[in-house]
Amino acid sequence: MLRSLAMAIIESVRWSPDGDAVRIIDQTQLPARLVELDLRSIDDVCDAIERLAVRGAPAIGIAGAMGLVASLRAFAREPRERFDTRLRAHADRIRATRPTAVNLPRALDRMLARASDVPGTASDVLEALHGDAGALLEEDRAMCRRIGEHAMPLIADGTSILTHCNAGALATGGIGTALAPIYLAHEAGRRVHVFVDETRPLLQGSRLTAWELTRAGIPVTVIADGAAASLMRAGEIAMCIVGADRIAANGDVANKIGTYAAALAAQHHGLPFYVAAPTSTLDPSLPNGDAIPIERRSPEELSRLRQERLTPDGAGIDNPAFDVTPAEMVTAIVTDQGVYRRPFDFGGARGARAPVVVASSTSST
Amino acid sequence: MLRSLAMAIIESVRWSPDGDAVRIIDQTQLPARLVELDLRSIDDVCDAIERLAVRGAPAIGIAGAMGLVASLRAFAREPRERFDTRLRAHADRIRATRPTAVNLPRALDRMLARASDVPGTASDVLEALHGDAGALLEEDRAMCRRIGEHAMPLIADGTSILTHCNAGALATGGIGTALAPIYLAHEAGRRVHVFVDETRPLLQGSRLTAWELTRAGIPVTVIADGAAASLMRAGEIAMCIVGADRIAANGDVANKIGTYAAALAAQHHGLPFYVAAPTSTLDPSLPNGDAIPIERRSPEELSRLRQERLTPDGAGIDNPAFDVTPAEMVTAIVTDQGVYRRPFDFGGARGARAPVVVASSTSST
Repeated sequence: MLRSLAMAIIESVRWSPDGDAVRIIDQTQLPARLVELDLRSIDDVCDAIERLAVRGAPAIGIAGAMGLVASLRAFAREPRERFDTRLRAHADRIRATRPTAVNLPRALDRMLARASDVPGTASDVLEALHGDAGALLEEDRAMCRRIGEHAMPLIADGTSILTHCNAGALATGGIGTALAPIYLAHEAGRRVHVFVDETRPLLQGSRLTAWELTRAGIPVTVIADGAAASLMRAGEIAMCIVGADRIAANGDVANKIGTYAAALAAQHHGLPFYVAAPTSTLDPSLPNGDAIPIERRSPEELSRLRQERLTPDGAGIDNPAFDVTPAEMVTAIVTDQGVYRRPFDFGGARGARAPVVVASSTSST
Repeated sequence: MLRSLAMAIIESVRWSPDGDAVRIIDQTQLPARLVELDLRSIDDVCDAIERLAVRGAPAIGIAGAMGLVASLRAFAREPRERFDTRLRAHADRIRATRPTAVNLPRALDRMLARASDVPGTASDVLEALHGDAGALLEEDRAMCRRIGEHAMPLIADGTSILTHCNAGALATGGIGTALAPIYLAHEAGRRVHVFVDETRPLLQGSRLTAWELTRAGIPVTVIADGAAASLMRAGEIAMCIVGADRIAANGDVANKIGTYAAALAAQHHGLPFYVAAPTSTLDPSLPNGDAIPIERRSPEELSRLRQERLTPDGAGIDNPAFDVTPAEMVTAIVTDQGVYRRPFDFGGARGARAPVVVASSTSST
């Protein structure tokens, strides 16, 4: 549990009690079973990331860095040169697991740079990296909390909130992005009710968001994606808050497919539509959302569920993983640095000047 | 195959070659397998309707009437009085299979009324009922075709069409309602491309609509329900056409959950949104859509898929089966009697004066 919160908010990535392994929640088992895995070997780490046992761009970056450290633990007595070669080989293997997200290579590069700065033995390097990987986790936790604190005033007592996909504790090292203010509002005693789009095709809403909110004692109602608009029309939803994968300079937001449909319905019904995301998601190199590439993912995500075949032979399938919500449909964007309202100007955001290669897709499923 | 069309449009309900059984497509096996079942006994008939092997309000009504006849075939030599008792008992059992739809009781009542008008032996009654049940099927076929003919001019060559759920040949005795003009346009050589919402939770779009259109050689692309709005924004969809379960006097339309979200997106992007439905769907007893009761169906439809558990314990689930699309979002309503445009006035529609108890839910899943 996060010490800073009384609620049962889960930690998707952390050190095992002995500090030698990365303890993750196996998200492929949710919501049926809560299974934690301790990743110790390079095979453990790569396998967990590849098969989405750990997912969400921030969580993957953290698990990658911490996993790199854990995977080297057994080689702490190797000669330094041999250890350094092994370090680079392990980093390369982890980097290749999920090629699209920026968080993972960024975290690994930070580890490699740190290692080259540390003199001494392999053991000295390991100690330094252990500290740095832990710092990454702490920074992510702090980022989540700042987003939550900035966004919490937007959540009134007794409100009902629609969210889409999973931008929660399971996707980050902390209390999430879109879900962060919901956790904090709940902790502060405000009554909130969260409607969760199930989020086809991968069902991150019904499988993951509903699970972590329910576990924290927050009332949740899962709905089919197609039901959100009519629930808004019936007055059952008062506001929307979602995460983001990439935000263009003008405030256009790329997020999980279905976000745009929710934003459109919110606008039609006069409901506020908020986006919560770390500053690193801002990409000032893109003037607007038209420049954001939208990944098409595997048709299998729509054509099969486990053994069940859902579509006929011969039918085409289009499976865009993301959509772009135009800035004019976004009431405010909340980052760890504050609340931005239209017309969006992120000029003052620290870090927002550096182009972000993110996007993807794979990273945030 | 329907003799009137060169295409491979399937027939969801028909007589077996010997005329003694009702031959249906087992829709629970689609899209993986095309399995036809011959229903001969009262158990066969009730079981097929209950487990949704045959579905869609018109198709259920037809299968019920034809099934009643088939189930009595073995008793053609019984004394008339005993046969009449059996007839009523069989009708009662079939009526109880799906309690909500109006088509099934209406079809059975027609059979019972006919039987009481026929003098002579059990065999004489059976012969009359066989003719009447066949007439029901033919009337439905004709209704579908008229809808298709009225709506076909709305479908230009080279267009791309979004549809939702299944309002096709599988749901009727003919070529469907919403899909009827698509079949006819394709037959006439117009190039059409159909985007099919998968239609959570029961996936009638990906499982059934994609199957029957693909079989007829019509290009189909299955998409997640949440993707339709962003495909409209990208200019990939030019128009929408859907079926209806019930239409109020002012033109408000109840249809499968998700229809309203599609209509809202169509309106926002300036795309025409058409509804195609039989005249019997018009319900002048309801001034507007607020009076249409919306059935909440089982949470299991969202919480499980076969053995797969999709939501956590403790999470609420809201599973409205239908939504209401307000008349101002509907470009035109096409029935077997013609094309109605806003402001809707169905006063001239034959049969529209009689209150319709329909709605449901169960009937059209």
